Amino acid sequence: MELLTTNNVWMMICTALVFFMHLGFAFLEIGLTRQKNTINILFKNIFIITTGLLLYCLVGFNLMYPGEFNGILGFAGFGLDAPLVDGALDLAYNEGYTYWTDFLFQGMFAATAATIVSGAVAERMKIGPFMVFTIIYVGLIYPIAGSWKWGGGFLDNLGFYDFAGSTLVHSVGGWAALVAVWLLGSRIGKFKDGRIQAIPGHNIPLATAGVIILWLGWFGFNGGSVLSADPGLTSLTLVTTCLAAAAGGVVAALVSSVKYKNLDLTMFLNGILGGLVGITAGADQMNPTDAIIIGAIAGAIIVFAVSLIDKLRLDDPVGAIAVHLVCGIWGTLAVGIFGALAGFDQFLSQLAGVGSYALICILSTFVILYILKKTVGIRVSEREELEGLDGFEHGMDAYPDFRMNEH
Amino acid sequence: MELLTTNNVWMMICTALVFFMHLGFAFLEIGLTRQKNTINILFKNIFIITTGLLLYCLVGFNLMYPGEFNGILGFAGFGLDAPLVDGALDLAYNEGYTYWTDFLFQGMFAATAATIVSGAVAERMKIGPFMVFTIIYVGLIYPIAGSWKWGGGFLDNLGFYDFAGSTLVHSVGGWAALVAVWLLGSRIGKFKDGRIQAIPGHNIPLATAGVIILWLGWFGFNGGSVLSADPGLTSLTLVTTCLAAAAGGVVAALVSSVKYKNLDLTMFLNGILGGLVGITAGADQMNPTDAIIIGAIAGAIIVFAVSLIDKLRLDDPVGAIAVHLVCGIWGTLAVGIFGALAGFDQFLSQLAGVGSYALICILSTFVILYILKKTVGIRVSEREELEGLDGFEHGMDAYPDFRMNEH
Amino acid sequence: MELLTTNNVWMMICTALVFFMHLGFAFLEIGLTRQKNTINILFKNIFIITTGLLLYCLVGFNLMYPGEFNGILGFAGFGLDAPLVDGALDLAYNEGYTYWTDFLFQGMFAATAATIVSGAVAERMKIGPFMVFTIIYVGLIYPIAGSWKWGGGFLDNLGFYDFAGSTLVHSVGGWAALVAVWLLGSRIGKFKDGRIQAIPGHNIPLATAGVIILWLGWFGFNGGSVLSADPGLTSLTLVTTCLAAAAGGVVAALVSSVKYKNLDLTMFLNGILGGLVGITAGADQMNPTDAIIIGAIAGAIIVFAVSLIDKLRLDDPVGAIAVHLVCGIWGTLAVGIFGALAGFDQFLSQLAGVGSYALICILSTFVILYILKKTVGIRVSEREELEGLDGFEHGMDAYPDFRMNEH
Repeated sequence: MELLTTNNVWMMICTALVFFMHLGFAFLEIGLTRQKNTINILFKNIFIITTGLLLYCLVGFNLMYPGEFNGILGFAGFGLDAPLVDGALDLAYNEGYTYWTDFLFQGMFAATAATIVSGAVAERMKIGPFMVFTIIYVGLIYPIAGSWKWGGGFLDNLGFYDFAGSTLVHSVGGWAALVAVWLLGSRIGKFKDGRIQAIPGHNIPLATAGVIILWLGWFGFNGGSVLSADPGLTSLTLVTTCLAAAAGGVVAALVSSVKYKNLDLTMFLNGILGGLVGITAGADQMNPTDAIIIGAIAGAIIVFAVSLIDKLRLDDPVGAIAVHLVCGIWGTLAVGIFGALAGFDQFLSQLAGVGSYALICILSTFVILYILKKTVGIRVSEREELEGLDGFEHGMDAYPDFRMNEH
Repeated sequence: MELLTTNNVWMMICTALVFFMHLGFAFLEIGLTRQKNTINILFKNIFIITTGLLLYCLVGFNLMYPGEFNGILGFAGFGLDAPLVDGALDLAYNEGYTYWTDFLFQGMFAATAATIVSGAVAERMKIGPFMVFTIIYVGLIYPIAGSWKWGGGFLDNLGFYDFAGSTLVHSVGGWAALVAVWLLGSRIGKFKDGRIQAIPGHNIPLATAGVIILWLGWFGFNGGSVLSADPGLTSLTLVTTCLAAAAGGVVAALVSSVKYKNLDLTMFLNGILGGLVGITAGADQMNPTDAIIIGAIAGAIIVFAVSLIDKLRLDDPVGAIAVHLVCGIWGTLAVGIFGALAGFDQFLSQLAGVGSYALICILSTFVILYILKKTVGIRVSEREELEGLDGFEHGMDAYPDFRMNEH
Repeated sequence: MELLTTNNVWMMICTALVFFMHLGFAFLEIGLTRQKNTINILFKNIFIITTGLLLYCLVGFNLMYPGEFNGILGFAGFGLDAPLVDGALDLAYNEGYTYWTDFLFQGMFAATAATIVSGAVAERMKIGPFMVFTIIYVGLIYPIAGSWKWGGGFLDNLGFYDFAGSTLVHSVGGWAALVAVWLLGSRIGKFKDGRIQAIPGHNIPLATAGVIILWLGWFGFNGGSVLSADPGLTSLTLVTTCLAAAAGGVVAALVSSVKYKNLDLTMFLNGILGGLVGITAGADQMNPTDAIIIGAIAGAIIVFAVSLIDKLRLDDPVGAIAVHLVCGIWGTLAVGIFGALAGFDQFLSQLAGVGSYALICILSTFVILYILKKTVGIRVSEREELEGLDGFEHGMDAYPDFRMNEH
């Protein structure tokens, strides 16, 4: 009982920290995009966290954790149904947390996948279709895909390992981002006369704050994925998480300073995020040196991935594909290369996991968005894109009364 | 001992989270008001949290928790007086927390009431009288009123239930906001030629961040109100809190999109806050479905309350009356309608509580502010209001060196 | 085991809170400086936290806690080397935390010292030399100096007391800031025609948010310095910390309103920080009244110290020297005057500590920066200073797409 209480306290705090990541995502996304689309992005982020929680309560939790099932699709029924003993909550449910904590911690994860997409499609996607996509993707696809591993499904049986979601959360968001960006097309002016144009964001201090908040949130994201307060595992996980983040940032800054000859803050920031995503699949399996190497490689990957995605004429305003998809894949494979689980068989299992999630995410996103594109359309009008989504979709500015000082 | 340590850790974390709500309030209030009054609002918020804590140390804690008393007014003496056993802190004080944690958690609540008023009177109230009002209201009225229920006073004996303060905190702030707004009058330009004019704020990203921070803080506000780390109760409380917030936001966005034909971010945000305030009185007594219904109704209430308050020619720049007073009353009454305590007798007790707090808050606020109005005055000059309070009261701008880019 | 788990949970949360202080520092520093140098400050802060952690992993931790050593300089070897029992982490390492938590909590402290310097040298120091200085100061000087007390070195044997780092962290940063500011010289325009010119910052809301975040972080900074979740000590520490912060702010606001006849928000904020730094050396040794007095004196000190530093023609854009050095010294000496340890011998020990740290910090900072000054130079060109470091060093603006509304 004492231990359950302690474990549950830790898990509740981690839940709060993962919730707080939504402010990190919001700040990062609005910071790296133009002022005229700020309200739209904030609206999407607020929509995702609220709707995501309600959907996870209605169907997601019981799709993701269906109990005994065929390994591909199971459903334990609508709504929450707390296990009771003599009318009181069954505290023997799990030694690491209560039923309620279980739901809420997992629910906070669910919304993240859609948030990743939100950044990638920013500044040009219609809000209505985005909301429809979010509802289906967070409500159905994310939990079904999640059940394959965390719900005890076929990938779990195959030995696939994903500690806190390099694949189950970040790549799931990243694949959808990739497909969405491809179907949407690039923003007006991004690729002009065969050249790549930088479209600077409007508030780098908030973007920076977003990354620090995300790093803080990762204490809960990875630390809570231990699913108890086990002192050795939780604290090791925080150490590997922080070292990978630090290494990712430093290496991305170094590589980009060599490649582009300036000290690029946004590359530094994306390197930190890349390191965090990279360590997530195996944060409990690595020693500090492993963590630094995984993070450092993620940091280098970021610089080249951002450049490659640009060259492929994919317009991802916040770098979500490089951070969440590419580093998510890297982190997942790294579990087969570094740390306690390293080995060829494990590597193959990791590959199988990456491939399976690629399949379901690409297919489902394509089907949903293709139907939406051919019916209601997914892209705003040229005029709306040029003037900004805030006025058209929301009837308001982000800084309506902001005035300049005369100096 | 192990359990006390765990309980106390949880309560200290919740204390920190409630403290952090003051950043949420500050961001929300400055975001929804004009740039020229930003420093003034920040100054008030910083004044409230610092002075509030010192006053709660000096008199508040012992007014609110006087021990045995007549049920209306008691006082256990000035300052803090930790119970000792053989010269060491008496750890048998409470099984859920130490004496110090008790003081600090309650102290963080105390300042909140005045913060609610701060938003409602923004952009036109003199800073001096506001500080005088805050000192009396936080130092005396809040703790005396609080003693009626949480201190074991007459409303506690009547069976009135208010888990975490829909009434004791939010309505106490909301009633004062209502009276203050009425005595102050509306901002210049708000009601012109018989029409209601929107006066947009200056920084919606910060307002949005404020709401996310407030939601995070509510993990501590409601979660800590269990007064221990009891795993079942604390985690249930977090679930009901988050579901009510989500439902409140979604319903407010839906209703306002039907009523006003646009996707209004600030209504979404206020709906979340309404859901949070609404669930607060009974967060430990509801199941998830109850919580979603209570939050959803709060979300609908917000849309109509904001509109009604406008029609009554009451000028509340941040929607504090709709959120904290109206939803505070709703949440308090909901304890008699939904959840484990529902019943006609309970409903009557809830009504008695709402009425008693209305009485003391309206009366005391009226007396304090009326005296201030008739002596020093409570409203800034027209010139100061038009040019902004920042320059006149504080001699500085919020963004003194902010420069525009030339594109 | 239950108790270790609980203690370790508390320490991990405190670690997260201290990490979060880096956002507080970043917001404070950019808020109080000009827009044109914002990216540069953010880059420095991100550099410090990432590099600081990696360096602390590589050498710092084992320099600061070398085990048995001569009391002045010891080194337990490169990298982390977790103590194992039968191949598993040795949980008997300490009853308050694991080896990993120990490293990470101390690592989060390490970076703070350089962050303090970052604010003081803002707007005119070259980024390259700053990075070199940071690497040496965080990697070598901070941990060696820290070993003298927290590593069990000669000052620990002398009876010097510094609970959470008024001297070991804040003065160590503050002395370096003083020397750096002196070697760098003042910003162009700060002291013109023999008069002191205020150079206003660009974002006071973010500066205010920074202080609230720092206060929140101090829950972990001081609360975690108990090195366990001991319920009496941790909660007392939070109470003294918060009361000193509140008293510092209120007194600084009062004194400055008398001295300068206006309600100065930035002085209020610096008073809070002064109170926090002041209580840090003895936060576990004071009762609430002591804490209020120590904080109040720190608040008064801030007002006069800021003015004195200006008169000495030392240009410290964010007030770092007044806050971290002057109040750090005050707090360290206060341990000999107030609270459980007060006494003449203790006061002398505190003086010895202050003097020893003055010596190593002044000397080492002078040597490092003097060499850098005479070789590569430490100050940017006049043109770069006037146009801003962001464009020259980083090739980007902080708010590149920010647009004004036409009203």
